[in-house]
Amino acid sequence: MLLPKASKSGKSIGFSKVPPLKEKLNFNKKGTFNFENDAAYLSLAKNYKTIVTTDSITENIDFFYNDPPESVAQKLVCVNLSDLSAMGSAPVAYTLNLSLNAKININWLKRFTNRLFKLQKKYNFYLLGGDISKSSELTLSANFFGKAKLKDILSQNKCSVGDDIWITGNLGNSYLGYQILMNSKIKVSNKDAVFYKNSYLYPTPCMFGSIACKFISAATDISDGFYGDLNKILNNKVGAIINKKNFLISKNLRNIISINKLKISIEDVLSWGDDYQLVFTANKKFRNQINNLGKKNNIKLTNIGTIIKAKGIHDDSMNIIKNPSSYDHFS
Amino acid sequence: MLLPKASKSGKSIGFSKVPPLKEKLNFNKKGTFNFENDAAYLSLAKNYKTIVTTDSITENIDFFYNDPPESVAQKLVCVNLSDLSAMGSAPVAYTLNLSLNAKININWLKRFTNRLFKLQKKYNFYLLGGDISKSSELTLSANFFGKAKLKDILSQNKCSVGDDIWITGNLGNSYLGYQILMNSKIKVSNKDAVFYKNSYLYPTPCMFGSIACKFISAATDISDGFYGDLNKILNNKVGAIINKKNFLISKNLRNIISINKLKISIEDVLSWGDDYQLVFTANKKFRNQINNLGKKNNIKLTNIGTIIKAKGIHDDSMNIIKNPSSYDHFS
Repeated sequence: MLLPKASKSGKSIGFSKVPPLKEKLNFNKKGTFNFENDAAYLSLAKNYKTIVTTDSITENIDFFYNDPPESVAQKLVCVNLSDLSAMGSAPVAYTLNLSLNAKININWLKRFTNRLFKLQKKYNFYLLGGDISKSSELTLSANFFGKAKLKDILSQNKCSVGDDIWITGNLGNSYLGYQILMNSKIKVSNKDAVFYKNSYLYPTPCMFGSIACKFISAATDISDGFYGDLNKILNNKVGAIINKKNFLISKNLRNIISINKLKISIEDVLSWGDDYQLVFTANKKFRNQINNLGKKNNIKLTNIGTIIKAKGIHDDSMNIIKNPSSYDHFS
Repeated sequence: MLLPKASKSGKSIGFSKVPPLKEKLNFNKKGTFNFENDAAYLSLAKNYKTIVTTDSITENIDFFYNDPPESVAQKLVCVNLSDLSAMGSAPVAYTLNLSLNAKININWLKRFTNRLFKLQKKYNFYLLGGDISKSSELTLSANFFGKAKLKDILSQNKCSVGDDIWITGNLGNSYLGYQILMNSKIKVSNKDAVFYKNSYLYPTPCMFGSIACKFISAATDISDGFYGDLNKILNNKVGAIINKKNFLISKNLRNIISINKLKISIEDVLSWGDDYQLVFTANKKFRNQINNLGKKNNIKLTNIGTIIKAKGIHDDSMNIIKNPSSYDHFS
């Protein structure tokens, strides 16, 4: 059994009692009190706002029990960093709430922790604390804290008619990886199979939001599917022309789709999330600056369309591809 | 089914899509972006630190499915506010991660939300955002953010030999309520049964930590049992004499214990948490100030002992009651 005895009444326990988490992830930051206090404090330089985001991932939905623990850690960090990036902020720290079940052993937790450690070093953030409780299914929640100056904070819906629409990276790699893992009998080379499966298992956040915040008018990360996320930016107030729909995905993926026409389509790919790329808008006058920042940071950028007055998402012949967003309330 | 369709791939959804949460708990704070953005920002007055704490509560451990949703909300807020108080800070805002199952309906969520709303007004904090995911068991996590000046932040282990040891309120009310609810056949009047059951179902945090932080040397909330939590303060470096052990619990509860001797003992009560009172230490010279603050804020305070050099927790004849703390690591 995982949980230490300290938790008499079966309650959640703090990280100070979990050696791998405590020893690895506590970067000797003063405000964490070595995870032994009831809480921690966060200290930002003057003039910075604390950006807060929170996301959970759940077994059998976002990941499966047999997935490598490194993949679970990577996904948990990725979904949250991606949100910070979309707000124009860089990560600072985070807290974790782990609902674990009896299947989880110390080796799982060590591997999970080692990946968190690597990600903390790569993206420069530290753990403030957290707790572990028991559950029949694994649920992992994280709260991430970023920093940004007030004037640099990005919002989803501050675009203007005439703005360029950009995306980072390629969409759909994660979708194809998931299909391959689910044995959808996609015809694909072994090398490609490994690449796409890894795109699904080990997504990387695109941190371009904090890099280019000065030039971006609105941004969101692509977590619910390209159309749905672009609709968040359009906010039922403006529309979009997408004139390079095919360029949202890589040439290699387009080839695989054309070989597997009966099993997957570009529309499937664009309705799926999990790539954690950004879709953002920017005034046309910033094209050079944005392209230069992309090159400098080795981030692929594609200018895929324009914000227009007419609501809905259109192709370049002004045929509607998707209607304006409508919130799906409780059914 | 609870989750709206928006969540194509079964993923978690944001609160902007959940009317009761959105309409009730969004106090029109600028940084929350009406819960529609990828994240929110937190803005504190200059010279304040952001205090961060996180705690989860889980079905079948911290609460049961048939418990009133108001009780679940109250517990989730209480465990977190109590931690903020123990750090000497007042609440500002929070985020929520709800793992819900198909048993939860809109009525449950409305009642849950109404209680959160009341607590937000009572303790003066607002919701920054959060998400909802599916799970077979209910797990509710919250991250709370408080504020405190750096010099006022309390730590668990900064007490000195000679300091008074204080507790707030009475311990054990929640324990007795739980026993009554579990049908432990405790002999108790109907009126008392209601009172103690409510103490278990609707705990209230003791916010004395932020009120008296200037006079307190070390503090923690009593969530894991009196002895265990006092041991956190002693930190294996100093010890304690407890000369008023009986006064940790109310006269009424002492009477009930004496009538039900075979079923419950004072030791059971003191090993149980969930009262969310504070145990804290303070220099003797602050006795008057502390007592006055207690009276002013209508908080019962009992000076129950003294910090001493000899490790362990002792009675007033210097017999050891509990040995020094030892962390329970993974077994």
